[in-house]
Amino acid sequence: MNFKLPYIPERQNKPRTNGLTMVMDKGLSIREAENIISASNEYIDFVKLGFGTSAVVSGVEEKIRTYQKANIKVYLGGTLFEAFVVRNMFSDYLKLLDKYQIDTVEVSDGSMSMKHEEKCSYIKELSKNRFVLSEVGAKDASIVLSSDKWIAMMEKELEAGSKVLIAEARESGNVGIYNSNGTVDTNLIDKLLSKIPQAKILWEAPLKTQQVWFIKQYGANVNLGNIAPNEIIPLETLRLGLRGDTFFNFLPENLKEMKLTNQ
Amino acid sequence: MNFKLPYIPERQNKPRTNGLTMVMDKGLSIREAENIISASNEYIDFVKLGFGTSAVVSGVEEKIRTYQKANIKVYLGGTLFEAFVVRNMFSDYLKLLDKYQIDTVEVSDGSMSMKHEEKCSYIKELSKNRFVLSEVGAKDASIVLSSDKWIAMMEKELEAGSKVLIAEARESGNVGIYNSNGTVDTNLIDKLLSKIPQAKILWEAPLKTQQVWFIKQYGANVNLGNIAPNEIIPLETLRLGLRGDTFFNFLPENLKEMKLTNQ
Amino acid sequence: MNFKLPYIPERQNKPRTNGLTMVMDKGLSIREAENIISASNEYIDFVKLGFGTSAVVSGVEEKIRTYQKANIKVYLGGTLFEAFVVRNMFSDYLKLLDKYQIDTVEVSDGSMSMKHEEKCSYIKELSKNRFVLSEVGAKDASIVLSSDKWIAMMEKELEAGSKVLIAEARESGNVGIYNSNGTVDTNLIDKLLSKIPQAKILWEAPLKTQQVWFIKQYGANVNLGNIAPNEIIPLETLRLGLRGDTFFNFLPENLKEMKLTNQ
Repeated sequence: MNFKLPYIPERQNKPRTNGLTMVMDKGLSIREAENIISASNEYIDFVKLGFGTSAVVSGVEEKIRTYQKANIKVYLGGTLFEAFVVRNMFSDYLKLLDKYQIDTVEVSDGSMSMKHEEKCSYIKELSKNRFVLSEVGAKDASIVLSSDKWIAMMEKELEAGSKVLIAEARESGNVGIYNSNGTVDTNLIDKLLSKIPQAKILWEAPLKTQQVWFIKQYGANVNLGNIAPNEIIPLETLRLGLRGDTFFNFLPENLKEMKLTNQ
Repeated sequence: MNFKLPYIPERQNKPRTNGLTMVMDKGLSIREAENIISASNEYIDFVKLGFGTSAVVSGVEEKIRTYQKANIKVYLGGTLFEAFVVRNMFSDYLKLLDKYQIDTVEVSDGSMSMKHEEKCSYIKELSKNRFVLSEVGAKDASIVLSSDKWIAMMEKELEAGSKVLIAEARESGNVGIYNSNGTVDTNLIDKLLSKIPQAKILWEAPLKTQQVWFIKQYGANVNLGNIAPNEIIPLETLRLGLRGDTFFNFLPENLKEMKLTNQ
Repeated sequence: MNFKLPYIPERQNKPRTNGLTMVMDKGLSIREAENIISASNEYIDFVKLGFGTSAVVSGVEEKIRTYQKANIKVYLGGTLFEAFVVRNMFSDYLKLLDKYQIDTVEVSDGSMSMKHEEKCSYIKELSKNRFVLSEVGAKDASIVLSSDKWIAMMEKELEAGSKVLIAEARESGNVGIYNSNGTVDTNLIDKLLSKIPQAKILWEAPLKTQQVWFIKQYGANVNLGNIAPNEIIPLETLRLGLRGDTFFNFLPENLKEMKLTNQ
């Protein structure tokens, strides 16, 4: 905060253990990466170099270094991990991580099917010397998982060494934890949180309505991901109650008289 | 214009009294602010640091200075004004404006309810030594104001010292002067303009269809706001008839033979 | 590619004759143009300075030079060509091209009606010493052309000297080759390709679903246009099968066992 105001929710400083924000970089130039760092570095915990963009964007190693120097954990999109796995080239993926000097890695099975034991063995192997995020929930809208299945998988992945479970929504925000129209599957999420600690789950929430829903439901320090670069600052204002949608959420009762209907 | 063409609507130079464009900055870095200034400065009259983003973005004072040096009036989003008011801290808001050396200010009641006399007293107080814009119309879609009510409020706010009345649409463009599907409430707008001079109203028009509607209806020099940074130049082409949607709008009759149906 | 992977479709290097990508610049600053060049230059064949933006954006000549130095063919949006033609000022348009030192030009009739012979005569004139792209299909959703009409026009425009036929979709992607809801008019496209070589047509495909459709249907090296600057790298990952949507498209049969339903 640039100045003090009362009744603003507390946020941890980096490195944080809750209230994490993961930003999706779909191919920024180095200078654009510097721009978002200069405006919003303290609010960025992770940057994902989305899907296979790290394979094609120019200057990727310098960009990775730029993020790392700003104390941002940067990792390659899970789709790239899968592109190596589907080609039976997992050991080459490890070499790539070494070459790029990346200590954070996502394990996912959103673009291909994979036995869950196999997925967990990748998590186990990678978590020996890296910070592992693992993504749960298929990218394919036709695959519906029961909440028990979600929970069982989440527990096994934590056990295997995953530090953060990413609840899949895809860039468009209409699969996994969301219904096809982008609204949240509240029933599913309640069940997940009855068994898994909130701090362990990072919810992909590319749409503002989804961010608002999670903040109203689970507070300022819910973990949110797939945030577009130009939505980092707006998201932070939502977390702090400095935007219409969450304006009254963190105020004490005696200041709520002026609340609007439906707020 | 980089070159001359006949039948292009006249536009005033800055500082303008009509044909104003207000840009929404949701958390740009200083370098991004410089970018839009370098490409489109002559078309930007106001920059709003949207909602509470000025409280969280890094380098906000240098950014304010950057805009001001380019002869752009910069102001803090009305939601921040309200965040101080709801906490009974209006005098601290005045101190913040002084600290930031900001001479332009928005008075609004879009996120909280406020007696209209109270709103007008803020306008009166602030307009003593600042340029005041006041926003009319609630952010809450469930509140429908009659056109008489809109007009009465507008007249009182002008009387209190407001220089520009902002007709609320929110960032998403589906409340206030717009129906919930984003189309314009034409009946309401006709009535407003029967009583209030067009130059005094700045219409929030984040969506291109809305911008086109206002330009076709009220000409190139209608005041428009909540324009995204990457839509400043496209909006200017709409105003000048250099885009398909308004291509024939400013041409003389004898050049309209080639008009397409529905244009 | 920053590293080697098997089963990635081959792409020509610039200057390419197929797999072209045309980017829509709606008013970028010079520094923003530099940014996209630094991140993705090898994937950009054409930049269109959309509609009349070149008339209003500051620093346009320096920006044109910036693109040209990066071996990108840059041209002014067809709407500007039409803005001169509708005013009977074609010879002034030629002077503007000379002044801007632009060797690439778009001939279109998307914003005004024009006899097809007249359009072809402009193509003929301009193709004497310039690279001509000509756009087929009206911007007006109410005008429906039969596929025979599309083909006849395309053939005549090639004959007149057009090097690339642009299949119109407008920025919003819901007219011309698309239905009003943005889905592709597959029947029309099949018919066009039965007569016109694929390498000669550049499909405007601003929406990701459209890009995916063309790549799945016609391969990695289909020509695509009206790509937003922040979608250049994502599009390249679609072409290469490094994104979920096209993940299995270029893999050999024996690696497709892990395919998801609906993929």
